[in-house]
Amino acid sequence: MARTGLVLWFEEADWRDKKLLGGKGASLAQMTQIGLPVPPGFIITTEACRKFYSSRKAEMDELERQLRGNPPPAVRDEIIKKIWALIDQCDLPAGLMEDVREHMQELERRTGKKFGAADGIPLLVSVRSGAALSMPGMMDTVLNLGLNDNSVQALAKATNNEWFAYDAYRRFIQMFARIVLALDEKPFNDAFDRKSEQFAREAETTYKDELDAIRKLYPEYTPRLDAQPPKDIAPRLWARSLELIKELVGEYKDLVRKMWGEFPQDPYVQLELAIRAVFRSWMNPRAIFYRIANNITPDMADCTAVNVVTMVFGNMGWDSGTGVYFTRDQSTGEDRPYGEFLPNAQGEDVVAGIRTPLGLDELKKRMPEVYNQLIEAGKKLEQVNKDVMDIEFTVERGKLYFLQNRPAKMTPLARVRSAVEMVKEGLLTKEEALLKVDPEQVRRLLYPTIDPKVKATPIAKGLPASPGAASGQVVFNPDDAVEWAKQGKKVILVRVETKPDDVHGFYAAQGVLTSRGGMTSHAAIVARAIGKPAVVGAEAIKIDYDSKTFTVNGVTVKEGDWVTIDGNSGSVYLGELPTVTPELGGWLDELLKWADEERRLGVRANADVPEDAMMARKFGAEGIGLLRIERMFRKPERLEALRRVILAADDKEREAHMKELADMIKPDFKEMLDIMDGKPVVIRLIDPPLHEFLPSSEELLAQIYDLREQREKAQASGDAAKVKELDQKIAELQGLYNRVKALQEANPMMGHRGVRVGVTYPVIYYYLTRAMAEAAAELIKEGKRPVLEIMVPQVSDVNEIRFVKNNAILPALSDVEKEYGVKLNVKIGTMIETVRAALTASEIAKEVDFFSFGTNDLTQATFSFSRDDVENKFMNQYLEKGILANDPFDTVDVKGVGRLVEIATKEGKEANPKLEVGVCGEHGGDPASINFFHGAGVDYVSASPFRVPVARLAAAQAAVKEKLGIRGAVGE
Amino acid sequence: MARTGLVLWFEEADWRDKKLLGGKGASLAQMTQIGLPVPPGFIITTEACRKFYSSRKAEMDELERQLRGNPPPAVRDEIIKKIWALIDQCDLPAGLMEDVREHMQELERRTGKKFGAADGIPLLVSVRSGAALSMPGMMDTVLNLGLNDNSVQALAKATNNEWFAYDAYRRFIQMFARIVLALDEKPFNDAFDRKSEQFAREAETTYKDELDAIRKLYPEYTPRLDAQPPKDIAPRLWARSLELIKELVGEYKDLVRKMWGEFPQDPYVQLELAIRAVFRSWMNPRAIFYRIANNITPDMADCTAVNVVTMVFGNMGWDSGTGVYFTRDQSTGEDRPYGEFLPNAQGEDVVAGIRTPLGLDELKKRMPEVYNQLIEAGKKLEQVNKDVMDIEFTVERGKLYFLQNRPAKMTPLARVRSAVEMVKEGLLTKEEALLKVDPEQVRRLLYPTIDPKVKATPIAKGLPASPGAASGQVVFNPDDAVEWAKQGKKVILVRVETKPDDVHGFYAAQGVLTSRGGMTSHAAIVARAIGKPAVVGAEAIKIDYDSKTFTVNGVTVKEGDWVTIDGNSGSVYLGELPTVTPELGGWLDELLKWADEERRLGVRANADVPEDAMMARKFGAEGIGLLRIERMFRKPERLEALRRVILAADDKEREAHMKELADMIKPDFKEMLDIMDGKPVVIRLIDPPLHEFLPSSEELLAQIYDLREQREKAQASGDAAKVKELDQKIAELQGLYNRVKALQEANPMMGHRGVRVGVTYPVIYYYLTRAMAEAAAELIKEGKRPVLEIMVPQVSDVNEIRFVKNNAILPALSDVEKEYGVKLNVKIGTMIETVRAALTASEIAKEVDFFSFGTNDLTQATFSFSRDDVENKFMNQYLEKGILANDPFDTVDVKGVGRLVEIATKEGKEANPKLEVGVCGEHGGDPASINFFHGAGVDYVSASPFRVPVARLAAAQAAVKEKLGIRGAVGE
Repeated sequence: MARTGLVLWFEEADWRDKKLLGGKGASLAQMTQIGLPVPPGFIITTEACRKFYSSRKAEMDELERQLRGNPPPAVRDEIIKKIWALIDQCDLPAGLMEDVREHMQELERRTGKKFGAADGIPLLVSVRSGAALSMPGMMDTVLNLGLNDNSVQALAKATNNEWFAYDAYRRFIQMFARIVLALDEKPFNDAFDRKSEQFAREAETTYKDELDAIRKLYPEYTPRLDAQPPKDIAPRLWARSLELIKELVGEYKDLVRKMWGEFPQDPYVQLELAIRAVFRSWMNPRAIFYRIANNITPDMADCTAVNVVTMVFGNMGWDSGTGVYFTRDQSTGEDRPYGEFLPNAQGEDVVAGIRTPLGLDELKKRMPEVYNQLIEAGKKLEQVNKDVMDIEFTVERGKLYFLQNRPAKMTPLARVRSAVEMVKEGLLTKEEALLKVDPEQVRRLLYPTIDPKVKATPIAKGLPASPGAASGQVVFNPDDAVEWAKQGKKVILVRVETKPDDVHGFYAAQGVLTSRGGMTSHAAIVARAIGKPAVVGAEAIKIDYDSKTFTVNGVTVKEGDWVTIDGNSGSVYLGELPTVTPELGGWLDELLKWADEERRLGVRANADVPEDAMMARKFGAEGIGLLRIERMFRKPERLEALRRVILAADDKEREAHMKELADMIKPDFKEMLDIMDGKPVVIRLIDPPLHEFLPSSEELLAQIYDLREQREKAQASGDAAKVKELDQKIAELQGLYNRVKALQEANPMMGHRGVRVGVTYPVIYYYLTRAMAEAAAELIKEGKRPVLEIMVPQVSDVNEIRFVKNNAILPALSDVEKEYGVKLNVKIGTMIETVRAALTASEIAKEVDFFSFGTNDLTQATFSFSRDDVENKFMNQYLEKGILANDPFDTVDVKGVGRLVEIATKEGKEANPKLEVGVCGEHGGDPASINFFHGAGVDYVSASPFRVPVARLAAAQAAVKEKLGIRGAVGE
Repeated sequence: MARTGLVLWFEEADWRDKKLLGGKGASLAQMTQIGLPVPPGFIITTEACRKFYSSRKAEMDELERQLRGNPPPAVRDEIIKKIWALIDQCDLPAGLMEDVREHMQELERRTGKKFGAADGIPLLVSVRSGAALSMPGMMDTVLNLGLNDNSVQALAKATNNEWFAYDAYRRFIQMFARIVLALDEKPFNDAFDRKSEQFAREAETTYKDELDAIRKLYPEYTPRLDAQPPKDIAPRLWARSLELIKELVGEYKDLVRKMWGEFPQDPYVQLELAIRAVFRSWMNPRAIFYRIANNITPDMADCTAVNVVTMVFGNMGWDSGTGVYFTRDQSTGEDRPYGEFLPNAQGEDVVAGIRTPLGLDELKKRMPEVYNQLIEAGKKLEQVNKDVMDIEFTVERGKLYFLQNRPAKMTPLARVRSAVEMVKEGLLTKEEALLKVDPEQVRRLLYPTIDPKVKATPIAKGLPASPGAASGQVVFNPDDAVEWAKQGKKVILVRVETKPDDVHGFYAAQGVLTSRGGMTSHAAIVARAIGKPAVVGAEAIKIDYDSKTFTVNGVTVKEGDWVTIDGNSGSVYLGELPTVTPELGGWLDELLKWADEERRLGVRANADVPEDAMMARKFGAEGIGLLRIERMFRKPERLEALRRVILAADDKEREAHMKELADMIKPDFKEMLDIMDGKPVVIRLIDPPLHEFLPSSEELLAQIYDLREQREKAQASGDAAKVKELDQKIAELQGLYNRVKALQEANPMMGHRGVRVGVTYPVIYYYLTRAMAEAAAELIKEGKRPVLEIMVPQVSDVNEIRFVKNNAILPALSDVEKEYGVKLNVKIGTMIETVRAALTASEIAKEVDFFSFGTNDLTQATFSFSRDDVENKFMNQYLEKGILANDPFDTVDVKGVGRLVEIATKEGKEANPKLEVGVCGEHGGDPASINFFHGAGVDYVSASPFRVPVARLAAAQAAVKEKLGIRGAVGE
């Protein structure tokens, strides 16, 4: 035997090696080896495919890289042409076809069938692609290979069904022409349609009697050339259709001759061409674009395998059929078999969706034997694969064959329930169960829903683009959304469609409703990204921006009217409907308890207001990792007080105003500490540039000009009192404008903010600390256990920390301790959100009790990307052109930001072994990032409340993976 | 002997150990050991002082740190009190005084004098402080210690001059009271003044005859109690003054008794108190503040030594005296002795400056023996110390004593000349000579000066605050300076004084002139920092901001009039005087040639315009390390073209405008490449955010409002045509405003700029590259050797480089090569100015030929400091409060930015051994930074043209230090 090692029998291949065998090959090998009936066959490995491409690999990689750059269409077509030209220069590995031929001969021996011969039972095979990762619809497959003018007759004889045989031949030629020979399919379809129409015409006229007879028995029957008429009832119609099919075969062969050359009668030529075609399909543009779009890298899947499988036929009669079987309910996770079965049909008929398949109950009734065999196999496959399985099968004349199995796609709920139940059944360990559930899916179980007890009728339906239910007053543009939200109103932003410039409105709104766009429209993507409920493409809604109204089915909704949207169902309701806050419970609760047992990372929440804190506690947060006090300044009287602090003429004045402000916000601190009683609350000292709290200079300028216009008019009309009054107002505004201009910064993100404010105005940090400390002291006196941790933002040098500790924080704490006669035990820490803080962590660590990585700002600083500007102006292009694989604001950038996190964690802990290290940027809620933080030695992450369960699970997965030696998902 | 090791004879101490002995002690030991006559004595080492403080060191360090925080005055006084209290708790090291006593007894034996005794020759000593670094005027010294009621009589006897003895006693008591006992000096001065006035009165009346006799011989004589009348001419006056001095001694002792206690008669008590006082003076506030202000850290000088030196007297008659001697001319460096000598005087008299000292010629005439001895000693000390020396000496009755020597302070010119000549004399090696010259000083030799051939009379004189001469039209406020400069005018900014808000005007102006302020005023500091000529404090100038004029000596200068300022001399002239561009030459040229032989770092220049390039070549630049093309867009027609590119509606329109713009700037590229023919020119692709080239939105808003006001008026007056015209204008401006707003960025520094523009609009980079490439191609065709290197800014990911290379730069180069039929050999490189570029250098290095660190932006990103905002808003406070030791935009921050430079250089070169690594941020011209870059393995630095010689020398020093194993100045 001339074995190359590139061709492996299902019996011999190591089914665990999916990268070598591809997913389909591995599943066929697995099922064969555990004793399930699989049509005999073999696998040509992905290694063979790699060898096929090897001589042109460098050039093709370069072209693929250029394609990733998303070039203009003309350039793209040029590149694709070049790729095709290179593929034509690729050769099958030496000896491969000899090896394949020997396997085919052995297959003939094993099956007792003959490949391409006119006599005996013909051996037909399917030639199926199969990469390590499923790329649905991207790769090519050829069925019924081995049919030619001779073997079609043998097939007719063997099946005793000439119609079936020629139908198969017709299908094969068309498929071969399209896929293997890459010919235009249209002439083939046209020819088929002409013949089929002719047949239908004749059936309704010449063979009307037989047609009526069939219809009596099968009312749904339509005369088409691809459905075999029952020969017993309608022998002439049957014969006529066979005749027409034979003619069609002739026409198809003529078409192939004209477009390419003589249709190959040698089955080995067919086979070689088909193998080449499957290899080629790995580099077809749609496959390349699919891999780009889905971030599939060579280490995940590199080339496709080819599976050569003996054909079995589900369309050999009513004792045949084809189906899919899920070992558990895909939607609920319940442990009951679920599936579909289509009698007398081939797989492609199921996909085509023309006939309605039967349920498994029906299969059980009709073929109890097959049904039992199926269920038993399902259990076995669950045991071997430790997962809920999705199984493809075919029944040929009452005999069951398995064609593929793979883990089932499930709803989040089903995924959680089945994983938990499998542990109880002893099928999975808890660790394995934890790895089964995608943490992102968990979040979907937590969004608010409309109270099911409420009976309400939606006024419109759209697509459920981003989960959660929300109520608010209708506004029609993003600026209004921001303005109304500033006034404390809840709003729903309603737009025909949205664009990047509208994003500030998303943040301000409770939810978003659009009348146009699909699940991947801008509105849908952004809403999901920032976690706002959204209904998109509610086309019944007609929006009129000018009158600020929308109408839907006769109802008119004005700006300011209340609506409720349900991003889980896509429904839109009038008025403010009660929503139900989610509870962890049942299966999820159990799973998360296991997660808590496994994880090493702590999980805290980012929470600024009591509702968030209560939610966070409920979702299992072990504390608040980031409380931003800025939100406390939103109330008008506080904002006014803060403005007085900022605009103070001297230190004395500043101190007086700051004292007043501190008294205003103390109750907020107290409430938050009380809610989290016994658990740490990390409060960040004031962070943003102070001028952010002042009106914008452009706004003021506009006001000044408006007043000047009024003054002009007042003067014209001789109203001296009015002029005087306006002059005074203008002077006041001008003064404010000047001060605002003086405070304005070119790059506020990198300006006078954070600890820099604490250094220049220690009095601000002193009184903020006092307010927190007094809140804690009062709680202690009430017998509570507040755990206050104070965090300094934007530090870039250890001396900044030393300065604000000595000049503000420590004096404030000690003053309060003295005044209240209590001991506070406050930890003092710093954000690590400048690059320099990370690089000088060993110095800073000695001055603090904890670090908390502000990965948002750290990402900005590492890339020199201003998030607002970047997201609006070019991040989409960067992702589309493949310059960045992920938005680094979603998933932590391991090479840059991650490296800094590792350096700072390692060097910080070396310098101060008691140092606690957390992450409070948004990455703290991203599973891939959490996996990285686990590996980097971080102690806890802090995430938004809804992401706390996600983080608990992701942290557990990281720990389990480490324990089991599984490599992580990010950058490893 | 109870030797503690803390007290060392001049004969035995290792004079190379300045840290242990202090500067003064080391110089006394050195002179003693090389055989020069030094009054006998010993050193109490700095180690003794450290032991003195050791028990309170931690507390004192903490308090000193708090002082560095620049607390408010009340807090500061509190801290100082605490420091004094702690000092009082410090004890002299065990055994120290016994050891000192034994040394004093040995000193008595060696000198044959007696310490504090009534008989024999009295031993008097000076007790002098001396730290490792000179801190002029900061530390304390006590003279004539050992005098008491007994020894004063012995002194009278020994000197045969009772007047002299009691005068010395009076001076000693006062000095002891002030320095050692820390008593208020005022009552002592008052007492002296009363007696002295009484003496003067009596002299003019009672002793008029004798006074007249004296005046005949010494016309300058004034009757004061601190000047001994000639006894031979005026015996009664002499006796009367002695009487009064004795009374004064009594009064002084009474004062001490009242304020402190009995004046100590025991000389060992005096000595112990004096030693304590010197130790204490290390921690006196003015010394602490001096160290803070001068960045003196403990590794440079830690505590003071105490020198106990036998007193010699320069005031023992006209054969005595005191003086200083410089071994070469301090101003020119010429090898001729220079110095001053004051006969019959003590050191403090020289300092007081009451009498005019004689030149060395006069000393040579009067005491040729002494003179020869002095010159010989000078040569010897030059040989031992390898430097020009500054020597203090005293002559006591014809005998020469040396009291101190130290390297002389010299002008930059003298420093360079003497170093070069010392090499020729064989005194220094070239390496040593290179280390002698501060690179910063070199720059001062290069500034433009007013052409000396021009005879012009200044209209005013001020302080020469920042070197260089400049002419320009007078403007009176910084905004005007910016506005006029935008129009291409040269301006001189004239202000009464300046404040931080004015700094933008400094950048726009050629130079700055103020009528108020000194060498450390804001205007002076900023002008020096940014290298603009400045004259400050020209008080004769009276500025009237309202009329925009200034008057000086009857001349009135209006806004727009031309003036010339000379920052080298402080002169101000009317009109535009011709200035002379400096040439390297003479001594400096020779030194820099040696530097070129030694240095490993290449030195290029940052130059955007032909004048800069020519200057750079002349100053020895080996190429242009950074050519910013942005300056080429300043011309109005180019700016218009660029605006059309930015505002283009689609790609096609953008391409057309870009092509036009590229043609406009091609000649500029050609000129620069031609000037640098044969040397590399690194041209940076467009870097700033595009909207920087558009008018500001606020400006547009103001214009719109103005037009609206006009429209209002036009409507009121019924001018319909005008209204229509204005409406159209308003609509146009509104359109532009909207587009400007859409492009506006929150943080432009981190926004859509640099390579990000190249990725989103490859056509811009394509045509810029074409323009450079065509310029090079044309030169090649003309037989020139242009060396073009193209640099991509703001890269943060290797894929950005790949993308612009493949989609813009390489296509442009290959298109031009084809069209011109030449081979261009262009290197392509990247700025490393984002943190991520530094951290992923190993990936980026594989795609480029060179790196160039943009340390300005890298510093911004590492600290998250926006330079504009930081410098204006809080950098001063950060430096004052000691949070940062240096402005990191001046000297590279080693811990943060430097670490990134090291990482990127190392990892970049490992990945691509051919990689060339440069620095083109402003740090490329800073000596301390250059020293760091040398160590980090960088290949070249690029500096502004005037800093090229600085960089050449600094680079040589780094190489020499490395060779000789001397540690560098920055962060090591």
